[in-house]
Amino acid sequence: MNDNFDYKNEFERLQTYINSYFNKFFSKYRNKNIKLYDAFEYAINGGGKRIRPILTMITAAAIGNEPENAVTPALAIEILHNFTLLHDDIMDNASIRHGQPSVHKKWNSDIAILSGDMMIGYAYTILYYDWYYKTADDAPMLHVKLSLINTLTEALIKVCEGQELDTNFNTAISVSMDDYLKMVELKTSALLCCAVQMGAEISEANFETQSALNNYALYLGIAFQIQDDMLDFNANNIKFGKKLGQDAFENKKTFPIIKAKELATDKADIDFINRYYQNKISITDNDVNTFIQIFNKLNIPEIAENTITSYIEKSKQYLSILPKNNYTEMLYWFLYYILKREY
Amino acid sequence: MNDNFDYKNEFERLQTYINSYFNKFFSKYRNKNIKLYDAFEYAINGGGKRIRPILTMITAAAIGNEPENAVTPALAIEILHNFTLLHDDIMDNASIRHGQPSVHKKWNSDIAILSGDMMIGYAYTILYYDWYYKTADDAPMLHVKLSLINTLTEALIKVCEGQELDTNFNTAISVSMDDYLKMVELKTSALLCCAVQMGAEISEANFETQSALNNYALYLGIAFQIQDDMLDFNANNIKFGKKLGQDAFENKKTFPIIKAKELATDKADIDFINRYYQNKISITDNDVNTFIQIFNKLNIPEIAENTITSYIEKSKQYLSILPKNNYTEMLYWFLYYILKREY
Repeated sequence: MNDNFDYKNEFERLQTYINSYFNKFFSKYRNKNIKLYDAFEYAINGGGKRIRPILTMITAAAIGNEPENAVTPALAIEILHNFTLLHDDIMDNASIRHGQPSVHKKWNSDIAILSGDMMIGYAYTILYYDWYYKTADDAPMLHVKLSLINTLTEALIKVCEGQELDTNFNTAISVSMDDYLKMVELKTSALLCCAVQMGAEISEANFETQSALNNYALYLGIAFQIQDDMLDFNANNIKFGKKLGQDAFENKKTFPIIKAKELATDKADIDFINRYYQNKISITDNDVNTFIQIFNKLNIPEIAENTITSYIEKSKQYLSILPKNNYTEMLYWFLYYILKREY
Repeated sequence: MNDNFDYKNEFERLQTYINSYFNKFFSKYRNKNIKLYDAFEYAINGGGKRIRPILTMITAAAIGNEPENAVTPALAIEILHNFTLLHDDIMDNASIRHGQPSVHKKWNSDIAILSGDMMIGYAYTILYYDWYYKTADDAPMLHVKLSLINTLTEALIKVCEGQELDTNFNTAISVSMDDYLKMVELKTSALLCCAVQMGAEISEANFETQSALNNYALYLGIAFQIQDDMLDFNANNIKFGKKLGQDAFENKKTFPIIKAKELATDKADIDFINRYYQNKISITDNDVNTFIQIFNKLNIPEIAENTITSYIEKSKQYLSILPKNNYTEMLYWFLYYILKREY
């Protein structure tokens, strides 16, 4: 291991590498006056941190490959992730994404539906073609390519199932913590599992390693989602162009809300939460503040932090199967890096 | 060749074969209480005639394969086709499909978006798995599987591009016959080309054969679309639960409308068409009748029939490269069969 290996620098180097490929990719479609490609590029360049593709590249490298040899699954998972954002934003009627108008607001929902559909196509296209590699020998063998394609497909199906569960929650009278975890596993963890799985596949990792990495990503995803749910009620939201308590306005059943329902003992709080569950409140900023007060009274910020920590600990233990090297260390670092985010 | 080979019987036999596979497929997901799968099955069983999958199977057989050995691309193209219908119906706000409520009307647009997305996933899943074949030896080799996957992907991207062009037409002041043909090539022919291309690939046809079959499907698609556009103004529409002149209500620029704009000489007709192009009419049933009168005056039904015939003749000539057998003959028969439809 190299003591001078700087995780943050390497993260940024990989971001730049990924972005340069996207730039090359989009240069073929610019000035063609096709709105679908404009929306596609707008979405990809919307300010995402490239968490999933970098996870693919680090995983591949931890198993002994060059991170650059995982470029096609990296690009594919980032495109698939952005497709889900486009379609989710239509369903959630979310007008802001990364501080900018979402695609269906900037264009319209037809363009958001269609460019999302087309993006699925390009995720597969990129996995299929070999021109992303320095030499033909770097490109994956046919059976590896097919596994990558199948792994992408499985993730696509899971995120759709997860999004159905999530939208069902909006009108559900009761949502247990188990229901929530099942939804997060499908909606959030599935793409992270796909990211590490593809990194493992391109490095031809054995089954045990693949399975351990999937668990790493599963628990990372749960920790990530709980943090996301908590940030929704964080005042910093406003700084990043989002609405405070956006999830509540969408009638979502998120971690703090489910936890509050579990723990509330004051009659007024129970009544408020029940009315929310029964869709009897047309949410206002005041209601969001009521939620925040209830959360604080019930100590939910601390409970959430402890829950996140326990999932991170669970996630971490699965990395012990990996060879000792800088990129494996970077997978540990990654857990803390992405959970330090404020938005 | 077998003189007793009955095209219509064989068509129906293949329909039954395809439907039995779909039935087996959906039996795994029924009673799971997942709306996406209910919508998926509802769409697939909505009354489509299985034109594209049968085209795949006949093409494979014309080149010397068993039609049954093309079952996975056949199922995949039918799923992809139905995904496009689900998403198109949202964009067109079409409430009826095959005489039944469209998915976004029966459920809602979230379910139509998500089940459409998931269906893309299942088109790839089916291409990936081998359990659809009688024996493992019948399943395609890895390189063939990858070509099938890439052919499906190319069609997915083209139909999205074609749908953008089609929706652009709704607000376009001028749409030439060339613009129209370009749109039809992407939106309608692409899936038919994909169908025959996959049939050719699974039978490992050479490049010339593949290219000829693509031209067969390209011109078949144009003929098919012109007929579809004409049927929209046909009184039979009402019999099949559709609205007379539905395309006009959606401000579409279809074959008879573009042709009428080219040929109209009476000032009143020109004015009417121009106001339609400039979106200055909020279409009524009366306007649809005005369109029909203009079409009849300009002899457009006959012009359309002649145009369809000329595309069919063009399409047909590309079949001469194929071996002489019953299934090649069936590809000729197919041209006339699908153009005899009344809805």
